[in-house]
Amino acid sequence: MKTKITNGYILSDTLRKGELCIENDRIIFSGEHYEGSYDKLIDAHGGLVMPGFCNAHTHSAMTFLRSCADDMPLDRWLNEQIFPREAKLTGDDIYHLSRLAVMEYLTSGITSCFDMYFYPDDFVSAMTDCGFRAVLCGAVNDFSESVEKLEDYYNRFNGKDPLISYKLGFHAEYTTSENILKDIAQLAEKYHAPVYAHSSETASEVEGCIQRHGMTPTAYFESVGLYNYGGGGFHCVYMTDEDMEIYKNRGLFAVTNPSSNAKLASGIAPLCEMHERGIGIAVGTDGPASNNALDMFREMYLAVVLQKLRTGDASAMPAAAVLEAALSGGARAMGIDSGRLEAGRLADIVIIDLNMPNMQPVNNIVNNLVYSGSKSNVALTMVGGRVLYERGQFFINDEPERIYAKANEIIRRISSQV
Amino acid sequence: MKTKITNGYILSDTLRKGELCIENDRIIFSGEHYEGSYDKLIDAHGGLVMPGFCNAHTHSAMTFLRSCADDMPLDRWLNEQIFPREAKLTGDDIYHLSRLAVMEYLTSGITSCFDMYFYPDDFVSAMTDCGFRAVLCGAVNDFSESVEKLEDYYNRFNGKDPLISYKLGFHAEYTTSENILKDIAQLAEKYHAPVYAHSSETASEVEGCIQRHGMTPTAYFESVGLYNYGGGGFHCVYMTDEDMEIYKNRGLFAVTNPSSNAKLASGIAPLCEMHERGIGIAVGTDGPASNNALDMFREMYLAVVLQKLRTGDASAMPAAAVLEAALSGGARAMGIDSGRLEAGRLADIVIIDLNMPNMQPVNNIVNNLVYSGSKSNVALTMVGGRVLYERGQFFINDEPERIYAKANEIIRRISSQV
Repeated sequence: MKTKITNGYILSDTLRKGELCIENDRIIFSGEHYEGSYDKLIDAHGGLVMPGFCNAHTHSAMTFLRSCADDMPLDRWLNEQIFPREAKLTGDDIYHLSRLAVMEYLTSGITSCFDMYFYPDDFVSAMTDCGFRAVLCGAVNDFSESVEKLEDYYNRFNGKDPLISYKLGFHAEYTTSENILKDIAQLAEKYHAPVYAHSSETASEVEGCIQRHGMTPTAYFESVGLYNYGGGGFHCVYMTDEDMEIYKNRGLFAVTNPSSNAKLASGIAPLCEMHERGIGIAVGTDGPASNNALDMFREMYLAVVLQKLRTGDASAMPAAAVLEAALSGGARAMGIDSGRLEAGRLADIVIIDLNMPNMQPVNNIVNNLVYSGSKSNVALTMVGGRVLYERGQFFINDEPERIYAKANEIIRRISSQV
Repeated sequence: MKTKITNGYILSDTLRKGELCIENDRIIFSGEHYEGSYDKLIDAHGGLVMPGFCNAHTHSAMTFLRSCADDMPLDRWLNEQIFPREAKLTGDDIYHLSRLAVMEYLTSGITSCFDMYFYPDDFVSAMTDCGFRAVLCGAVNDFSESVEKLEDYYNRFNGKDPLISYKLGFHAEYTTSENILKDIAQLAEKYHAPVYAHSSETASEVEGCIQRHGMTPTAYFESVGLYNYGGGGFHCVYMTDEDMEIYKNRGLFAVTNPSSNAKLASGIAPLCEMHERGIGIAVGTDGPASNNALDMFREMYLAVVLQKLRTGDASAMPAAAVLEAALSGGARAMGIDSGRLEAGRLADIVIIDLNMPNMQPVNNIVNNLVYSGSKSNVALTMVGGRVLYERGQFFINDEPERIYAKANEIIRRISSQV
């Protein structure tokens, strides 16, 4: 099955007409004109053809908590609102709520997510049923999951379905004991595998870690041997020079979540400094309880303008660097072969409608995407060669109305139980 | 001509089914069920019917500079990029570029704008030709316009067309001499009129004003007698306690422009403090050269989350207060009779599609609008009882493609001249 995309511009520094050809789930041609045969033709109608966004940190199923408890201090929000409701979730809930997240990802041009949550079997079913690409991240901590389960998941979810992969991971330093971390480090050694976790999200987390271990979370994880095969941290808001050196030397990825860090008053990550050191940066939405949207255009905008605010320098953090982070930065952090429109890469592709007022005039296509682009510009989203979304229509395994109804039913049930 | 809107929810704290009836440009009924006759029926398809956003500070025609020169220090950006290009604008350019802004406003549910720019005759033609509501703000300064022109415009544009009104105003303290400000204060006295200007946008502006006059811009304007009949300031990023007391006592409006202040590294306005004092707050996009989008969803999100970042308190600045500022706060600042769905008010109305993944589940409709809402949810935008936009279609006086082509042609011409 070959699909040709024609009549579009291919994302580069300037607007450049071009065509793509996709065979099954891979791009086999990206260039000016594709001469070969094809089975299906997609007309981009003069739109911009670009790689799909890689959402490099999220908790998809938290859609049920959207707008459920906003404008609260972080500790009360977590302990009074989030944890009691999460405790009532079933695997079936996870299935439905994750499909709602997939729908939102598709409307925002997101073609893959790096997800950390509960009930991985149900989550994986939701992803494969929808045809969406996901990398799962282990969520081991002192209260749920275990290193045995982590290894089981790692072996069970890797190499089976081309849409699914699994990375070693744990929740965070403040929720996970050292003996567990050492066991995870042994798994990393055994599989030569990278390890990921929430890291340096808040000032109090870093202070607590220093009190407990005499080191920042990054230095502590490094000392335990967790980063011998790479990996990365989610949030990375409070990073010392030494932390950044470890990221640089180990090739770790810093996944930034600017909306969540702003809404929860956590702080602003030092993206400029990490970018200047050549540390790999990726962008994530975090979960919809803390964001509250799954919108990579908003994340990109915030990622760049918050750097300007933080440094007091309007020239800080060029837009192109953040776009790169949201595309190939995410793909590299997640270990998937997308993020660039090149022959051989996965056909995770988005078409952006440029014939909308926020994208005109086209003085600079990259800056238009980052500074004035919006999910309203997403005309088509394709994952692994399959069109899953096109101009308001979803081509997944259920009707939108049924998925919305299910999400409302779940939150009503859970709220009545807490 | 009577139009009934049915099958929708009317914006309030919770989802409440309701109907509206509009006669000519006014709402004549807002309630549960409208029993009377009507000529036209609009089916809201289960969407949220709400007032249109009032964009309380913008420079509409700056659409031509979108993405033209980003990521530059403020002074170089203004002197090397913006001013030389603006100097090449013609009245005809303003007409076309302002229509492009109107299109973008409509896609974002904005039904009126408070605009400060050049060539008011051409701007007014663009607004009335499109059917869009605008309040013009005088832009007197030492280099262009004059107090005589200001009075001429004030008399010429007020009371003629129900879509158009005009407010006394000047550019800013650092661009306008004291004798001009005193003449404007006399006009304010003569017409019992409020006065508006850019005010306390940057730290250096405030420092310069203190050096020149021994006072902050707000205190200085008050001392000159500019605020005897109210008015307000655009930006209001650096506000002292004394400034806020003046705003409170004079009933001045603080118009916040969070995207522009972030992107230009100007700072974060003390919205919490102003809100707690009961100062009227409105929200504006500022012009598309500094933002770069005209998107009130983005402004609302930034307005609220930047307060959390600034104060380090996730409970700071409730979402409902920012929504109120973007609706009736703007209407009050602009002196127009919109911002609430009440009989007698102007029929500036938006329908929000709730059957989209970012608006589900509906745990809290106000928080959904502010925290996860997007211009992609805007299904219909009505100004003065006329539908100007519906699901991607514009009902203005020209074809979108011609307006886009014109904008691209103008920036190409101007860039070749500078």
